[in-house]
Amino acid sequence: MPSLSSGLAHTHPQIRPHNNHLLKSSHYPERFQAVDKRMNKPIVALLTDFGDVDTYVAEVKATILKETRDAVLVDITHQVYPQNILQGAFLLALAAKTFPSNTIFVAVIDPGVGSERAALIIETMSGKTFIGPDNGLLYPAASREKIRQVFRIKSELIPNVSNTFHGRDVFAYVAGLVAAGKDISHLTEPYVLTVQLQLPKPVWGDGWVDSVVLHVDRFGNAITCIEGGLPSDWLIAEVYVNDEWKTVAKVGRFYAEVGMGEPILLVGGTGYLELSVNRGNASKTFGIKPGDRISFVKSRA
Amino acid sequence: MPSLSSGLAHTHPQIRPHNNHLLKSSHYPERFQAVDKRMNKPIVALLTDFGDVDTYVAEVKATILKETRDAVLVDITHQVYPQNILQGAFLLALAAKTFPSNTIFVAVIDPGVGSERAALIIETMSGKTFIGPDNGLLYPAASREKIRQVFRIKSELIPNVSNTFHGRDVFAYVAGLVAAGKDISHLTEPYVLTVQLQLPKPVWGDGWVDSVVLHVDRFGNAITCIEGGLPSDWLIAEVYVNDEWKTVAKVGRFYAEVGMGEPILLVGGTGYLELSVNRGNASKTFGIKPGDRISFVKSRA
Amino acid sequence: MPSLSSGLAHTHPQIRPHNNHLLKSSHYPERFQAVDKRMNKPIVALLTDFGDVDTYVAEVKATILKETRDAVLVDITHQVYPQNILQGAFLLALAAKTFPSNTIFVAVIDPGVGSERAALIIETMSGKTFIGPDNGLLYPAASREKIRQVFRIKSELIPNVSNTFHGRDVFAYVAGLVAAGKDISHLTEPYVLTVQLQLPKPVWGDGWVDSVVLHVDRFGNAITCIEGGLPSDWLIAEVYVNDEWKTVAKVGRFYAEVGMGEPILLVGGTGYLELSVNRGNASKTFGIKPGDRISFVKSRA
Repeated sequence: MPSLSSGLAHTHPQIRPHNNHLLKSSHYPERFQAVDKRMNKPIVALLTDFGDVDTYVAEVKATILKETRDAVLVDITHQVYPQNILQGAFLLALAAKTFPSNTIFVAVIDPGVGSERAALIIETMSGKTFIGPDNGLLYPAASREKIRQVFRIKSELIPNVSNTFHGRDVFAYVAGLVAAGKDISHLTEPYVLTVQLQLPKPVWGDGWVDSVVLHVDRFGNAITCIEGGLPSDWLIAEVYVNDEWKTVAKVGRFYAEVGMGEPILLVGGTGYLELSVNRGNASKTFGIKPGDRISFVKSRA
Repeated sequence: MPSLSSGLAHTHPQIRPHNNHLLKSSHYPERFQAVDKRMNKPIVALLTDFGDVDTYVAEVKATILKETRDAVLVDITHQVYPQNILQGAFLLALAAKTFPSNTIFVAVIDPGVGSERAALIIETMSGKTFIGPDNGLLYPAASREKIRQVFRIKSELIPNVSNTFHGRDVFAYVAGLVAAGKDISHLTEPYVLTVQLQLPKPVWGDGWVDSVVLHVDRFGNAITCIEGGLPSDWLIAEVYVNDEWKTVAKVGRFYAEVGMGEPILLVGGTGYLELSVNRGNASKTFGIKPGDRISFVKSRA
Repeated sequence: MPSLSSGLAHTHPQIRPHNNHLLKSSHYPERFQAVDKRMNKPIVALLTDFGDVDTYVAEVKATILKETRDAVLVDITHQVYPQNILQGAFLLALAAKTFPSNTIFVAVIDPGVGSERAALIIETMSGKTFIGPDNGLLYPAASREKIRQVFRIKSELIPNVSNTFHGRDVFAYVAGLVAAGKDISHLTEPYVLTVQLQLPKPVWGDGWVDSVVLHVDRFGNAITCIEGGLPSDWLIAEVYVNDEWKTVAKVGRFYAEVGMGEPILLVGGTGYLELSVNRGNASKTFGIKPGDRISFVKSRA
């Protein structure tokens, strides 16, 4: 067995040098372009860490609906672990690809609210719009859709902005204007991203792989950063969490391949390898939480 | 007091012989008929065990909205106990009767995803459509609305279906097509249901009744399978859970009839008898969970 | 330090004498007026203690959608602590101001359902409509919007009203009619409110203030009844909960002003003073729950 503790790289958010060519192509206008009203009704999709016990999400929606009643509002989730930008960025990237063009994403996980972090609008080649703070949250989703142009929202020009609730007063307000097809060029200016969050990547060795748990879903499935799964010649794998041996799991294709209560490694609906327990809860069974390091060793059995 | 332990029947899902006359009447066409576009906008009502911490529900909605922005999406609940088909079937049946015709129900509690279980569309006489797996989940709701015709979805003809997320790739995709009024006859074929789940029925004796807890609601009310309540000459009843004596409760009509913290038996908004504690939590007070056997004995007091 | 225990007043809901001039102005008609259909689509905003594990919220929505598919349904929250009218009234008042005119609020926290409490429609000067039980829940929100007229719903004329689910059978049904622009004058009559719930007010002393925790939000921020915050010359404050010293906190403007894990007092997005812990949970750190008395003493430090 290899030394697992030395193999892991890129497990924490990384800043990489700004790719100016990608983000600010001269082929595209620098003025913010209103949505083409001949298209379908816009969707406004919301992802926050606001939970469901407060009025915050409703106030975000009310602010959008003040500008237009013809947007379709969809909650992605509001249960991101408080202020966990990495988990939020992962979930936003997961969800965003399923939404059609002319979707406006409003994502608010914003521990720096009230400080100097910028408020962003990112337009993608795929016709999607991402609105949120410049703290990396939007980057994995937006970059997968190929970034067309990045704008800073001139929050200082928006009236009645509170100190702590930019989700409503800045992001939702601007999302409402965009969804309504209004011209917001006076409220925006071209901008260079300061934070380009990279989701962790697995590190592959000879018969082993190190990865990170990005998310634990409702069923307790531990979703790793291994996109596409394990090689086809892995039939059984040993599972280590934070260097501690946990179990031996079948490598399979669907949950019902193993007996009730037995572990299985498969590529879930997310497209990432996950550790599951059939009709059980892998997170509770093995004590796994988002951010944990999870390693797999191909078994000879 | 009668022997309670021998009296209970039909407390677990039953398969009953297929009633061919009911399900496949020659009076109705065998081709799937698109929704009449002159009607109101369709409602798409969703019931799953996906919870609210993941992107699954949002991906289901995005998939529907890709096909039409003019459906009204409504969440029934996504908090069904993971893979609990009986609870899901009960809640779907409860909710479905309140929805108007031209509602498309998408219900996904699907422990057999990826195995050979069929994907269904059930059309009812009441103009409602039920879409979900052939595992009994849809049956109690659909049969109450009188089944007009059952179709299998030819999932094998749908492109890009993942192994584990048929909720999005099959059920939501087809629901979107139906909501958009598109012809899906090439994707469907007449089908005979393999699982006809029956909700448990109470067993009545001389001054006693045995039943099953189908659901515990947010207030901790234990909802039994006794539709319509107890006979009008029952004023007080003794309560047994799994054969253990728990309490004596008033048989009443509304919660405020008893003092704070006192138990009461009444027919709730669901139409079923429930054991409640006024301004309290019957489930926690008496240790009751869905699936428990609950019995009542008429008291002479 | 002053005697904190003697200073607190108005911390519990108060009934005050009815102001007949305000509630029943002769300048306004006594017949219920249908919504002006030339306006934007109505919003129907829902606040209940129904939680998310049951079908109750979906049945409320289905009932509204039976009357019109053109209302925009928005959940404020359904996680109000069961039967906690004060918390519900506070959250409704918080949320209501962000919604535009032509919003119909349906608020159901209704421990007296089935008893003789009236069902209300309150019209405000701001063009908003509040529908719910006459138990104080609607009053703080509606009175901030200036009450134009109060009506009782003649529930006895509505067919098929269950004993326990007026949220669906009375309030949602009437909300659907109002949202559809239908004439409901035959179902309503002018009414004098019996309960005018007042939210608690802080009591100010020389260098100290006593208040009440109205709500604990998802982040664990303890939201007090001190609207607008502390005087600008308070830089640091000692914090007492139920007369017990808890901590010394900076008085600031945004969370990031203090280090991770440190307490801060600021005016949050709600407009009320809240005790927060930067990237932490003030409620758990200091053992605070809604209804607790919380007092602040200006520190000389």
